[in-house]
Amino acid sequence: MVKSLPLAFALAVDAMGGDNSPDMVLDGLEIAAERHPQAKFLVVGDEARLVPLLAVRPRALKACTVRHAPDVVPGDMKPTLALRVRRSSMRLAIDSVAAGEAAGVVSAGNTGALMALAKIVVKTLPDINRPALAAIMPSARGDVVMLDLGANVACDARNLVEFAIMGDAFARAVLGLPQPSIGLLNVGSEDMKGDDRVRQAAEVLRESHIASGFHGFIEGHDITAGTVDVVVTDGFTGNVALKTGEGALKLMRDMLRQVFSSSLSAKMGYLLARPALERLREWMDPRRYNGAILLGLNGVVVKSHGGTDATGFAHAIDVAMDMVTHGFNDRIHEGLARLSMPQPDLTSART
Amino acid sequence: MVKSLPLAFALAVDAMGGDNSPDMVLDGLEIAAERHPQAKFLVVGDEARLVPLLAVRPRALKACTVRHAPDVVPGDMKPTLALRVRRSSMRLAIDSVAAGEAAGVVSAGNTGALMALAKIVVKTLPDINRPALAAIMPSARGDVVMLDLGANVACDARNLVEFAIMGDAFARAVLGLPQPSIGLLNVGSEDMKGDDRVRQAAEVLRESHIASGFHGFIEGHDITAGTVDVVVTDGFTGNVALKTGEGALKLMRDMLRQVFSSSLSAKMGYLLARPALERLREWMDPRRYNGAILLGLNGVVVKSHGGTDATGFAHAIDVAMDMVTHGFNDRIHEGLARLSMPQPDLTSART
Repeated sequence: MVKSLPLAFALAVDAMGGDNSPDMVLDGLEIAAERHPQAKFLVVGDEARLVPLLAVRPRALKACTVRHAPDVVPGDMKPTLALRVRRSSMRLAIDSVAAGEAAGVVSAGNTGALMALAKIVVKTLPDINRPALAAIMPSARGDVVMLDLGANVACDARNLVEFAIMGDAFARAVLGLPQPSIGLLNVGSEDMKGDDRVRQAAEVLRESHIASGFHGFIEGHDITAGTVDVVVTDGFTGNVALKTGEGALKLMRDMLRQVFSSSLSAKMGYLLARPALERLREWMDPRRYNGAILLGLNGVVVKSHGGTDATGFAHAIDVAMDMVTHGFNDRIHEGLARLSMPQPDLTSART
Repeated sequence: MVKSLPLAFALAVDAMGGDNSPDMVLDGLEIAAERHPQAKFLVVGDEARLVPLLAVRPRALKACTVRHAPDVVPGDMKPTLALRVRRSSMRLAIDSVAAGEAAGVVSAGNTGALMALAKIVVKTLPDINRPALAAIMPSARGDVVMLDLGANVACDARNLVEFAIMGDAFARAVLGLPQPSIGLLNVGSEDMKGDDRVRQAAEVLRESHIASGFHGFIEGHDITAGTVDVVVTDGFTGNVALKTGEGALKLMRDMLRQVFSSSLSAKMGYLLARPALERLREWMDPRRYNGAILLGLNGVVVKSHGGTDATGFAHAIDVAMDMVTHGFNDRIHEGLARLSMPQPDLTSART
């Protein structure tokens, strides 16, 4: 459960993760400090580098306390090895959550390492078998939460049900929806479709306390159509679907760029339509959706894209702050307590 | 194996499948008859409806022979029930392939029923455990083949290896690539990523006769980036990825439509850029990519989208004609004969 505020720090921030750290992280904190003037941040990393960088960022300087970490978890390090690096910036940031100093942590570093460390150090909520990675993404009808995005490549029916409960709590707390609709990703919308795993999870959800919000099976195209507020799937499918959708949008953007430079009249057309196209670009800006959330832990853990910039990193901090201030984990806890579900059936695991 | 041409008919066509059948199908045949002037088609369906419709389509009339089928497989009928409808247009069209009258069949009807009927009536190639559903799709670097798109929701490593071999043969025969590159869809590109199933399949492929074309693991965004020519995955993931990508493109198209009607200057911009935008629209036209292919059978079986129009249906016929004339199944057969692989390991099935 999230410790009752005020803690010493709202969030701990891993200053050394991501492609352009620590500069990008501190620029992000400079933005975040303005947006969250009451919040205090614990910034963890190489003190000798951080102190002079903070000195020239007045808002961040005021909001941040530096904690020295001599080591860094490299982006390509295996999670099992990362667990042994006891004095990395990522580890010490996560440690501060477990120690009750900060309510959550944000890192743009190695995803696998962050998940492994968070599970072991921060630990899962009671009744949660496996944490899940969630993100908010745009759809034709507003923001959609999707999970799992890759924390669990093999999931059984019980895991999927837990993801639905966590997604429901997340949509209530962070998106502010009074009754989120929840869909289970499948190869068709009819009840008979899919494998035992998804059919069994659907049966349990139809009998659960979130039954009134359970929409049933959805298909890939329902994600961007906004058919539901919460898309539930296993980590393998979710990871592939997320990246496939991003890839399709990138293809379209690249083709449009070619189109608008293909002739003089197309270039003029671009100039005329530019203000409207810019609004579209802002709406789809991946930085607006930066910040994947590891759900199901005794604390808020948010993963920023490694390749993001200060704007994107500041958004990841926004997501974490939202979860901290809305008592998100308490809601998950309530949701699970109300769930009556048979014991985990491991025979239907998709391994 | 495809029976040596000439057979009585190049293709049998299910005239009654799809949303706007039989008119849409016959309009498609009118286009196809012009493109394939040597081909004879067996058109199966309600004779009383088909004969007058053909009478007003002169090219189709010349190329087609009508065979009466009193029944139709409804779009929502379960495959197990569809197997019992012995005189449906779909069944009689497939029967003609098994009987050696036609080299292949095209239907816009019930996908599950088509797959079930094709497996039982046309039968799988020797050494193929499970047929797969494949399609061609656009990428930044040209056309890409992806399989399985939903024929098998649970796949083991052996199935994935078979899909790779079939995809390789397909890319050689239909896309005309001398050495297609093949990628296995996963949650990351590093060797350690994913589950046992994909890691085991990758190991076998690295030692196989298509090892030189095997690119290794790819991620969702690699599909539209065109990183490889052939994308191999299980039917659950492939189905979701395909529909997610389509959904993302549809979202972008809808947003662009809004953008270009949002102001007078945006409307003028659209008019100026229109010729270039039209080329993009043609390039991405889903009708150009209509026609999913059921690979691994003793005959060519192509599924058209149910909601397509005559142009799309004609394209599905093109795909089937390509496979018939390029002796595609002979190539799969050769590929499998060269494969040395351990017996199917069912412990790694993803059920």
